[in-house]
Amino acid sequence: MTDSFFQLSANLASIAKGFHTRGWLLGTSGNLSAVVQRDPLRLAMSPSGIDKGELTPEQLLTIDENARIVSNHNGKPSDESLLHLRVVNDRGAGAVLHTHSIWNTILSDLYASDGGVKIEGYEMLKGLQGVRTHEHSEWLPIIENSQDMPALAEVVGKTLNEHKDAHGFLLRRHGLYSWGDTLAHAKRHIEILEFLLETMGRTSLIGKV
Amino acid sequence: MTDSFFQLSANLASIAKGFHTRGWLLGTSGNLSAVVQRDPLRLAMSPSGIDKGELTPEQLLTIDENARIVSNHNGKPSDESLLHLRVVNDRGAGAVLHTHSIWNTILSDLYASDGGVKIEGYEMLKGLQGVRTHEHSEWLPIIENSQDMPALAEVVGKTLNEHKDAHGFLLRRHGLYSWGDTLAHAKRHIEILEFLLETMGRTSLIGKV
Amino acid sequence: MTDSFFQLSANLASIAKGFHTRGWLLGTSGNLSAVVQRDPLRLAMSPSGIDKGELTPEQLLTIDENARIVSNHNGKPSDESLLHLRVVNDRGAGAVLHTHSIWNTILSDLYASDGGVKIEGYEMLKGLQGVRTHEHSEWLPIIENSQDMPALAEVVGKTLNEHKDAHGFLLRRHGLYSWGDTLAHAKRHIEILEFLLETMGRTSLIGKV
Amino acid sequence: MTDSFFQLSANLASIAKGFHTRGWLLGTSGNLSAVVQRDPLRLAMSPSGIDKGELTPEQLLTIDENARIVSNHNGKPSDESLLHLRVVNDRGAGAVLHTHSIWNTILSDLYASDGGVKIEGYEMLKGLQGVRTHEHSEWLPIIENSQDMPALAEVVGKTLNEHKDAHGFLLRRHGLYSWGDTLAHAKRHIEILEFLLETMGRTSLIGKV
Repeated sequence: MTDSFFQLSANLASIAKGFHTRGWLLGTSGNLSAVVQRDPLRLAMSPSGIDKGELTPEQLLTIDENARIVSNHNGKPSDESLLHLRVVNDRGAGAVLHTHSIWNTILSDLYASDGGVKIEGYEMLKGLQGVRTHEHSEWLPIIENSQDMPALAEVVGKTLNEHKDAHGFLLRRHGLYSWGDTLAHAKRHIEILEFLLETMGRTSLIGKV
Repeated sequence: MTDSFFQLSANLASIAKGFHTRGWLLGTSGNLSAVVQRDPLRLAMSPSGIDKGELTPEQLLTIDENARIVSNHNGKPSDESLLHLRVVNDRGAGAVLHTHSIWNTILSDLYASDGGVKIEGYEMLKGLQGVRTHEHSEWLPIIENSQDMPALAEVVGKTLNEHKDAHGFLLRRHGLYSWGDTLAHAKRHIEILEFLLETMGRTSLIGKV
Repeated sequence: MTDSFFQLSANLASIAKGFHTRGWLLGTSGNLSAVVQRDPLRLAMSPSGIDKGELTPEQLLTIDENARIVSNHNGKPSDESLLHLRVVNDRGAGAVLHTHSIWNTILSDLYASDGGVKIEGYEMLKGLQGVRTHEHSEWLPIIENSQDMPALAEVVGKTLNEHKDAHGFLLRRHGLYSWGDTLAHAKRHIEILEFLLETMGRTSLIGKV
Repeated sequence: MTDSFFQLSANLASIAKGFHTRGWLLGTSGNLSAVVQRDPLRLAMSPSGIDKGELTPEQLLTIDENARIVSNHNGKPSDESLLHLRVVNDRGAGAVLHTHSIWNTILSDLYASDGGVKIEGYEMLKGLQGVRTHEHSEWLPIIENSQDMPALAEVVGKTLNEHKDAHGFLLRRHGLYSWGDTLAHAKRHIEILEFLLETMGRTSLIGKV
C-alpha cells in the first residue's frame, strides 16, 4: 500500500462516513473512487456490499482500467466500477463519488421526461469548478437506470460527450454521480448538487405566510 | 457472556445508538435482537424501557424460544419479544430490528386500507437480499396494531406465510420490522426500507420549479 | 456540590447537548431542570443565555422554591424558572424540560384556536408514563405566550389542574414543556411528544404515490 | 499568533464544523470572521475555498480594514471579505457569520419582491440582542445577489443604514448574514434566524390532521 493509496483511502473512508451520516449512502448504497496513479491507471474503489458508515481504509480496493482487482483480491469491486472508469477516462477526473439521497432520487424521476434538471441563478453554483457567477446555468443530465453495466457505461460516455460542461449526472430513481480533479473537488461538487436538488425540491412546495 | 454474545451485544448497542441519532428509536421506542445460538435458541434482546441512545452491551438480555430470560434476570424483555421470535422462527432470521420513524409511522397509516405498500422501480431495492434489479416490486404488508402480543404474533406469522418474499412489515401507526441472515443484513434492510418510505412520502409532495 | 447535584448536572448537560444537536434548543433557547432535594426544595437549573450545545455541568445553578439562587451566584437563572417550579410543585415532577423545536412551534400556533392538540392512536404514546395502549388519547394544552412570568405561572398552574393527565403543554409560538418523575422519564416524554408533533405536522401534507 | 487570535480561530473553526454538520456551509460555501483588534482593525477571516467541516484554526487568515492579508499570506481571503468589513464597521460588530442553508436560500427568493421578510410573534426572537418580547417585529432585508463585491458592499452599507435595527440580512438565492458584539452572540443570531426562516417556510405548508 503506497502512501498515496493509503492517504486517499483514509480520505475516501472519511467522506463515506460523513455522507452516510447525512443519509446519502444508506443500506450499503453508493460508491466512491479516487485515482492513485494514471499510467497505468490504478483506481482506489469502495468494495461492493459494505456499510459506508463503517468503511475502513483497509477495505478499499485497487482496480485497473478494465475494472480488474489488482489488490485486496478477497474484496469485490462495485458493479458500477465501469461507470467510475468512464468518468475518469472521459473527464480526466481524479475522483468520482456516487450518492443515493432522497432528494436526488426524487428529482431524478420528477425531471426524467425533460432529460435533465436545469439549475440556475444560485450563488451555490459558484462552487462548481470553472463557474464564476450565480448567473451560471447548470444542466444535470438524467440517464435511464439499467442493470446492464457495459451498456450503461456507453450511455454515460455519450452523455458526458454531449454535455461537456456538466459537473454530474443523475441515474433515474437511482442516484447522483459527480467528480473533480481531486477528491476534495469531487466532495464539494456532491455537496453543492445535493444542496441544490433539495433546494429545488423544497422550493416547489413553499408559499409565503 | 460468550464472545459471540458479547460481540453481538456490542453491535446491537452501536446500531441502536446510530438509529436513535437518526430519530428512529426516540423515547425508548423500538427494539433489536440477534440470534446467539440456534439449538436451543438463544436470542440477544434489547430490554424494555431503555433509552436506545444510551444502550450498553451489558444491558442486552438473553431469552429462549418462549421469551423467558436466561441471563440478566433483573432486566425486562420487550413486550414485542414474541414478534421477534416469530420472525426468527418463520424466516430463519439471524437478527430482527424494529424502528419507529416518522415516515414509517405516516405511511403505515396512509396505506393501511391497501393492506401494504408497494415499492418498485428504485435502485435502492437491489440492496434487499435476493433482489437483483431495480425492476423488483416489494410488497411491505401493513398489520393493524394491537397490545395483545400473542394474538399479534399469530397475525405476524400468518402475514409472513402469505408474503414469503417480504423483507419487512409495518405495524399501523407503530413502526417497521425488518430482519436478515445476519445483523449487518438486518441493518441494511432497515436503512433501505426507511429510505424508500421517506422517498415515497416526500415524492407525493413535490412538483417542478 | 453534592454527588447527586453533580450527577444530575452532568446528565442535564448531556441532554442539552443532544437536544441542541437535534435543533430543539437553538440560539440559547429552552431550559432544563432537575430536583436535587425536596425539603427544602433545591432545583438544578440551566442558566439564562447559555449555548445549550456548550453547557457544562459546572454552569448549572441551584435555585430554591422561590427561584432564588443558592449556588453559583454569578449565574442568572432562566426567566422561566417560575414555570419549572410550578410543574415541580403541582405535578411532583423530578425533572422539567423545555424545548423550542420547529415542529412544536408550528403546531402550537396551528392548533391554538382549539386550545390544545389531541394526539391519539399512536403506539409511541405508550412511552408516556401510565399509558398502556396506543388507543390512549393525549390532550396537549396550548397556553398563550406571555412575558409576564408570574402571571404565566398562574395560567400554567390552572392548566395543570384542569388537565391532570397531561404529560406536557405548549406555549404558543414558543415551545414545549414536559416532565417526569426522573430526568430519564422527562427526556423520554420530550422525545415522544416531539416525535408525535412532527408526525402529525407531516401527516397533514402527505398523499399516496 | 496572539492568544486572542488563536482562541477566536479555534472558536470560528468549531462553529464552522457545527454549521457544516447542519448543512449550512456545504460545498465550501459561507464564511466566518471575528475582530481580533480594533485599531488598527485586524479581522480573523475564513479563507476562500476551504471545506468548512475540515477548517482548522491554523487556516484562519488575518486581514486589515482594506481586506489585505496581514498573516498567512499563502491563503486567499473570501471574496466576501468586503461585506464582513462593512458590517464590522457600520454595526461595530465583533463577529460576522454567513450561512448558505436550504431554507434561507428558499425564503430569500420567495420574499424577494417584498424586499425582506417580516418575522414577528415568536418567542425565539427574544434571543436577538436588545429584543425583550416575542411581540417584536424583525425585518430581515433581502438584497439582490451580485458578483461585484465593492458595489454589493455599498448596497449592504445602505441597507444597514436604512434598517438600523436589523440583526441580519439575506442575499437573494445566496445566503444569510448575521453578526453580534461577540462571536457567541453572532452564532446565537444565526441559529435563531435559521430556525425562524425554516419555521416560516414549513408553516406555509401545514394543515391540521
